[in-house]
Amino acid sequence: MHTLRVDLESRSYPIHIGSGLLSDATLYRPHLAGAQVMIITNETVAPLYLKALRSALTGHVVHEVILPDGEQYKTLDVWQRIFDALLAARFSRDCTVIALGGGVVGDMAGFAAACYQRGVAFIQVPTTLLAQVDSSVGGKTGVNHSLGKNMIGAFYQPRAVIADTATLATLPQRELSAGLAEVLKYGFIRDAEFLHWLEMQMPALLAREPAALAHAIRRSCEVKAEIVAADEHEAGQRALLNFGHTFGHAIETGSGYGNWLHGEAVGVGMCMAANLSARLGWLTATDVARTRQIIAAAELPLEPPSDLSAERFLELMAVDKKVLNGQLRLVLLRQLGTAVVTGEVAPEMLRATLS
Amino acid sequence: MHTLRVDLESRSYPIHIGSGLLSDATLYRPHLAGAQVMIITNETVAPLYLKALRSALTGHVVHEVILPDGEQYKTLDVWQRIFDALLAARFSRDCTVIALGGGVVGDMAGFAAACYQRGVAFIQVPTTLLAQVDSSVGGKTGVNHSLGKNMIGAFYQPRAVIADTATLATLPQRELSAGLAEVLKYGFIRDAEFLHWLEMQMPALLAREPAALAHAIRRSCEVKAEIVAADEHEAGQRALLNFGHTFGHAIETGSGYGNWLHGEAVGVGMCMAANLSARLGWLTATDVARTRQIIAAAELPLEPPSDLSAERFLELMAVDKKVLNGQLRLVLLRQLGTAVVTGEVAPEMLRATLS
Repeated sequence: MHTLRVDLESRSYPIHIGSGLLSDATLYRPHLAGAQVMIITNETVAPLYLKALRSALTGHVVHEVILPDGEQYKTLDVWQRIFDALLAARFSRDCTVIALGGGVVGDMAGFAAACYQRGVAFIQVPTTLLAQVDSSVGGKTGVNHSLGKNMIGAFYQPRAVIADTATLATLPQRELSAGLAEVLKYGFIRDAEFLHWLEMQMPALLAREPAALAHAIRRSCEVKAEIVAADEHEAGQRALLNFGHTFGHAIETGSGYGNWLHGEAVGVGMCMAANLSARLGWLTATDVARTRQIIAAAELPLEPPSDLSAERFLELMAVDKKVLNGQLRLVLLRQLGTAVVTGEVAPEMLRATLS
Repeated sequence: MHTLRVDLESRSYPIHIGSGLLSDATLYRPHLAGAQVMIITNETVAPLYLKALRSALTGHVVHEVILPDGEQYKTLDVWQRIFDALLAARFSRDCTVIALGGGVVGDMAGFAAACYQRGVAFIQVPTTLLAQVDSSVGGKTGVNHSLGKNMIGAFYQPRAVIADTATLATLPQRELSAGLAEVLKYGFIRDAEFLHWLEMQMPALLAREPAALAHAIRRSCEVKAEIVAADEHEAGQRALLNFGHTFGHAIETGSGYGNWLHGEAVGVGMCMAANLSARLGWLTATDVARTRQIIAAAELPLEPPSDLSAERFLELMAVDKKVLNGQLRLVLLRQLGTAVVTGEVAPEMLRATLS
């Protein structure tokens, strides 16, 4: 087991990474607020791992909510079911909510924990690569609105993240690739050396070689923890973590939630951001080709859906959370391994990238 | 105009109290995050004060959401309409939400501001006595669930509270009395001298004499600001502000939201808490009689609805937010002017008070 720490003063917490952690009672015990535990999971993950998690919580009053699986269910309506369950079980303010699943489960469970009785204890047990390297760390929680992704939510830090790498064995290949998109992101925005390592190790990662996956997860969490510790509420550099996401969110919203996996949309978004970075003279044609190559090597799509017009893209991007004073701000690459936030993209350049 | 300050480090904010403040543009300007402003109000308040507030915001992009009036609409479903409006108007993270109205409007608008894009600027413009002395100050926001009051919400501080005492002129008498319940609360829990002043001034307060109301609001806000500054998230003494509320919430939930005004239920709750305090030997029979007398003088009811059995009371109180480890904790009076939180009430004593 490897343990990192997200350094946020009184809200600091550990990220435990390793194989078989799911059922290790000693990892949960220090973070449970009281006797009552509500597990939030989904219908895909529950048959695989719910029993193992429950076995780590003996002696506690454990209830569960099993949500439908998919981004299209990350809505306020489905989210309400968590409160129905918490109140039906008469859970008090010293209960603990545990998210067992991928990004959607973690985002909804975390947002419910943030709001139940104005905030209860929360533990993330991510079971997808995407959740282990990205969404379970850093406290962003929330749900989608039909007009925009993640538009309703809270910053709410978990008390612990318990990432059991053994759960990746059951992950569909498409979701593994989607998770690798976020892993690549850390290389693109912050660590050229890691990006190079990922290029070399991509076959091993796709073959789920444990040592390769463990290193990728660990390095991803290190970068994320560092950025979150420096800027918890995204007043500045945390926005860099949204590399590829402004384009990606537009693809997800515009195509109907659930048709594209989040990581797939981010993969395309990173290609588009690289294209735009080249138009600004920051990346070379070789850099862009290399970017597309490694995203393709992760078995991710490179092009947005053909029915999403440039006009529609602009419309969807106008509600992005990084818009300030009516000005769209984008995360682009100064070079491979160094990202910046910029509000100075000429509209015709953006339009050229979109079409 | 009188200005107090709620002292919460980077989240500190002013409470402005005075007549005619509603349309004073200079009070809003320092607290608006950007050009976009969303006013949340209700169908009763909008015809009275929306125009005046809008006049203070010229030069800004101002939209509004007009909610139905009443505690029965303080639900997640109605709350969603605020996000629909924010997203339809394409409001970005630098928008400002302004609550114009009573406690229900303030609680829902504040909770929406807390969650829109994970948090946007928020200003409280309370137009009821209850909101001016209590709910607009301190950052408690949220909505009700059919199984419990204020069960879903956030701690989210406004950037400013602008309490225009002239708006009290249009307040129905029943709501004035409901507000006085919360004013009396501050006397009961913290300030015997203020309680005495309130006994003397009750006729003047009911007659809405401006000087009397201004003093009552100011002293109430002082006590609240002091307690909130010491314990923002209710880890300790902030719970004292819930004097009368555990019983009161049970009455509100048990009678169907909207049938009792919050302040009315709190008035009865304070009588019940005084009764229980006497059973513990903390108050004398004279103290209890005096308590009932002043609550009656504020033209508030003294008895819970007759169809609410002791059993049902206990059931409803079991989901109170102050329950910890299955133990109901109550705010009771050591003497008039001094409250304590206690978990040591014998069940038979509580049952005697309830029946």
